[in-house]
Amino acid sequence: MKNEIKIFSPATVANVACGFDVLGFCLDTIGDEMVIRKTEENGIKITKIEGYDLPFEAEKNVAGVSALAMYNALQPDCGFEIEIYKKIKPGSGIGSSSASAAGSVFGMNELLGKPLNNTELTNFAMKGEALASKCEHADNLAPAIFGGFTLVKSACPLKVLELPTPPDLFATLIHPQIEVKTSESRAILPKEIPLENAITQWANVGSLVHGLHTSDYNLIKESLTDVVIEPYRKQLIPHFDDVKSAVLEAGALGCAISGSGPSIFALSKSEATAKAVQLSMQNAYSKSNIQFETYVSKINTQGIKTL
Amino acid sequence: MKNEIKIFSPATVANVACGFDVLGFCLDTIGDEMVIRKTEENGIKITKIEGYDLPFEAEKNVAGVSALAMYNALQPDCGFEIEIYKKIKPGSGIGSSSASAAGSVFGMNELLGKPLNNTELTNFAMKGEALASKCEHADNLAPAIFGGFTLVKSACPLKVLELPTPPDLFATLIHPQIEVKTSESRAILPKEIPLENAITQWANVGSLVHGLHTSDYNLIKESLTDVVIEPYRKQLIPHFDDVKSAVLEAGALGCAISGSGPSIFALSKSEATAKAVQLSMQNAYSKSNIQFETYVSKINTQGIKTL
Repeated sequence: MKNEIKIFSPATVANVACGFDVLGFCLDTIGDEMVIRKTEENGIKITKIEGYDLPFEAEKNVAGVSALAMYNALQPDCGFEIEIYKKIKPGSGIGSSSASAAGSVFGMNELLGKPLNNTELTNFAMKGEALASKCEHADNLAPAIFGGFTLVKSACPLKVLELPTPPDLFATLIHPQIEVKTSESRAILPKEIPLENAITQWANVGSLVHGLHTSDYNLIKESLTDVVIEPYRKQLIPHFDDVKSAVLEAGALGCAISGSGPSIFALSKSEATAKAVQLSMQNAYSKSNIQFETYVSKINTQGIKTL
Repeated sequence: MKNEIKIFSPATVANVACGFDVLGFCLDTIGDEMVIRKTEENGIKITKIEGYDLPFEAEKNVAGVSALAMYNALQPDCGFEIEIYKKIKPGSGIGSSSASAAGSVFGMNELLGKPLNNTELTNFAMKGEALASKCEHADNLAPAIFGGFTLVKSACPLKVLELPTPPDLFATLIHPQIEVKTSESRAILPKEIPLENAITQWANVGSLVHGLHTSDYNLIKESLTDVVIEPYRKQLIPHFDDVKSAVLEAGALGCAISGSGPSIFALSKSEATAKAVQLSMQNAYSKSNIQFETYVSKINTQGIKTL
């Protein structure tokens, strides 16, 4: 059995327009790299962090917290060292903490001979995610661990559904370099919503799931709207409406806030359209003084990968 | 081309627990019979109504109103006579008015050589439905016309999705002989609902659609819950909780209010279970003084049938 594993732990998009708190999908070209190594000494140690300034104490690091949860449950006769090569900026809205929380438990599971299934791994990763977001969510973790599109039917008990990924879907993302605090983006949401809007939203969730099953790109397009959350959260993202209209004009199927922002994602049918959408995002944002990065990615149906 | 057609126009179940206002499915053993006949004289005439006391004037009868809407749009060089053999009790919550509204336009379309598709037929039928329910809804019409399970993604413009029907699904219904006014069952609903409940509901809609696509009966079972509407409307239906718990104990996958009630439906995997569920419904209700009827039906994937 191997004593060391190097993995790619991907960025993810949660909510996917209509599916607040339940839907997500996995990206392919954006993600962290991590090395997980068995040690004779017991316990979890984070030995290296590159890219961003994050705590080395396992109990204060999302990758460490999820690793400790799994470690304490399994009580293996070894310890683990974790190296984190962080490429996803924390707070960007594309599952940075989830990539870390998922990566450590995935790597440990591989080195232990896969005693746990993906749902069990996600459950442990949720302990790390809770450190970052103050609550146990799986809408970024599930796509990172399962790959493709996922629907978190319930968080407790955890039930993740793996939805099909139509072959020609590509994602484009723009990450404006501003800070949107998760606490603020949660606080801005209403506690109650109009029943009428809720009906529109669940019609769209149902039809998006149907569109993914039938590879009906036109239906996917018609379903990628968010009448519940976006009207509130878009206020926290400068030029959101400009980006959205530019992106739709460039041929995207849909465009919405990625997770709690500030990143914005679009889905397109074909890589060529996804690249045209990238240009339109760049044009829309280059008029502002805000720094930004953009990415094009196919949907990653595998999730975390061994390198 | 035929000058006369006899059809079976089925009862339907709207909402299907989690999918208020958007989901529905079609029944097989319960429905009206109608005869539609071409006449030389122009216009729409209702010449016979058996079963229930309903208006003969076309403008006051749901079957007449939908027929007139289609007739005025197509302006054929003939007229139509409609005979209605009403078996679905009006106000029972299983799409009585929809069966009438859908049946007349379906029959006329057949006699005219099918100039209209199912979506166009549903649009005309909605004019008749509006006479009964004061608003244009398609959540009973769509399953009657398309058959199987349907999702009305939007009413205006009308977009109906045809969902797959797992082969072993059977429905059981109980119709307590009490009157629940649609106006009352609408008025009792809140205008706003907790965001948290809305999230639960759209997770269930998404997972029910996924469960239908994958014939995952366990997932269908877990998805057939309604945390938004049922807590309000069940107050209008005596012994609802007794029926529901008896039915679930008898092995049903799920149980909820059919449309706006008072009928209650259950879904089961296998006809044998659906019949056991029927017995449990009868037992639960026989303790009351309320008259009732029960039915077992497979899911009708065809919709309206030519007899």
